[in-house]
Amino acid sequence: MIQKLIEKIRATGAPVVVGLDPKLAFVPEHIQKKAYEQYGETLEGAAEAIWQFNKEIVDAVYDLIPAVKPQVAMYEQFGVPGMLAYKKTIDYCHQKGLIVIGDVKRGDIGSTSAAYADGHLGSVQVGNTICRGFDEDFITVNPYLGSDGIEPFLNVCRAEKKGVFILVKTSNPSSGEFQDRLIDGRPLYEWVGEKVAAWGESCMGEDYSYVGAVVGATYPQMGKVLRKIMPKAFILVPGYGAQGGTAADLAPYFNEDGLGAIVNSSRGIIAAWKQEKYARFGAEHFAEASRAAVLDMIEDLKTIF
Amino acid sequence: MIQKLIEKIRATGAPVVVGLDPKLAFVPEHIQKKAYEQYGETLEGAAEAIWQFNKEIVDAVYDLIPAVKPQVAMYEQFGVPGMLAYKKTIDYCHQKGLIVIGDVKRGDIGSTSAAYADGHLGSVQVGNTICRGFDEDFITVNPYLGSDGIEPFLNVCRAEKKGVFILVKTSNPSSGEFQDRLIDGRPLYEWVGEKVAAWGESCMGEDYSYVGAVVGATYPQMGKVLRKIMPKAFILVPGYGAQGGTAADLAPYFNEDGLGAIVNSSRGIIAAWKQEKYARFGAEHFAEASRAAVLDMIEDLKTIF
Repeated sequence: MIQKLIEKIRATGAPVVVGLDPKLAFVPEHIQKKAYEQYGETLEGAAEAIWQFNKEIVDAVYDLIPAVKPQVAMYEQFGVPGMLAYKKTIDYCHQKGLIVIGDVKRGDIGSTSAAYADGHLGSVQVGNTICRGFDEDFITVNPYLGSDGIEPFLNVCRAEKKGVFILVKTSNPSSGEFQDRLIDGRPLYEWVGEKVAAWGESCMGEDYSYVGAVVGATYPQMGKVLRKIMPKAFILVPGYGAQGGTAADLAPYFNEDGLGAIVNSSRGIIAAWKQEKYARFGAEHFAEASRAAVLDMIEDLKTIF
Repeated sequence: MIQKLIEKIRATGAPVVVGLDPKLAFVPEHIQKKAYEQYGETLEGAAEAIWQFNKEIVDAVYDLIPAVKPQVAMYEQFGVPGMLAYKKTIDYCHQKGLIVIGDVKRGDIGSTSAAYADGHLGSVQVGNTICRGFDEDFITVNPYLGSDGIEPFLNVCRAEKKGVFILVKTSNPSSGEFQDRLIDGRPLYEWVGEKVAAWGESCMGEDYSYVGAVVGATYPQMGKVLRKIMPKAFILVPGYGAQGGTAADLAPYFNEDGLGAIVNSSRGIIAAWKQEKYARFGAEHFAEASRAAVLDMIEDLKTIF
């Protein structure tokens, strides 16, 4: 799957992930109204609204980008109907040829991580039948529990040729509270980064590993160091746009081959129609606003190289 | 909810949580067979099997214990139908008067943690209607992202009088890989423990905080230190039984009032019928085996005091 990601980045010229993180506040009123008329002001109604919203955005941008990253929390907030919208979104994006990175940040003790890995990347056996749960292509994983919480994900990645992005340095303001603390003179995130590099060695594609890392755009100096520590890891970079990261901040995340990083934007794309810059599109044409925002992001990222 | 937990621990004399972590391998064949006859060898069939399995166990043990802890990964592995079984399990346990600790180990940047908190502990507004997603009473939370990833959970806890258990020192063999690393001479888990104590001050019940901690039974010396660092935090203790922790290991997790900890057993209870010790019950009476195992666990824990 890492090869497919690289091929699609090359084909589109866009190391871009669109974060499908649909808050109801981003969903135009006409879509909410229609969904509530059909399903009531219920979790089902909310789930229908975000699914229709996603679908229209995916239709508008799928030819421009290699991948999408639905943030599962935005679906989970709507309970079981929300999870159904999550699954419908994954399947629809696959139909459109997109790579799906499930931003689930799971991680637990070994036997539990194995269940997460099976449910999101692999399969389960039911009687004599193999069934697949959510079936993303990549997921994000939390490293706090250490190697035996990570290994089950790697086992499934090797079997399925899928991948993970492990949290190393997150984009939020207080990420440093634990991640930046010095251990033998080096911050925790560097130690995690070294482990990511080591874990990745057993899951290599051609030039890059199936085991990637999450490093926020908001900490470019740290990104520079981590790029060196994990030369074969693809870096998923959140924090561009709404969270404050700029194209200039992103250069250190890429390798000299122009690869090695993929930059996520969520609100900046899916809620573009609410920004003054794209207000001309209006609520009815929100998906066209998203397309314009993706095109602008791609242009902006071209200034890096 | 922390008061209700304490009342129920006192009423039952059992600081015990039954971990509802249903792998298909634990589910007797007659239950699987019936479920597959009805739904096929599908995710729906698997979800029906684990739901019927849970229901029978809950019916057999609900009067003995204060709380259950479903591990969401064991449901998530079966995709959307699995999540429906998770929700049915939560609702059924509530009907039976049990406190439900959702072992979800979520945690993300602020706006995302807010969505998790709304979905699991709080509510969402859909049009003019307030809807509730999964509606557990407590959930487990991962601290790797620091305070701004935790605060949204605390906000919902304060509003809903619900609680969280934050991962401090996990029960798995490689938990020390990052958690035990020394920062200014003290292990990371102690720094996280101090934060848990600080976060908990803003969420106090009468004697204990709504903000608890997860500390594995497999590390009793560390439990002793953490008990002192977080005197007002309830400690959720996994790792008893199948993972190797014994009653003797558990004493340091309790305060002198006999409270302050609640001990989880999953496999040891729900798969009791597969142990030699309880084999006399047979597969048909698996739930009675679980009841016997709970009674034995309660007796075992009484040796602590």
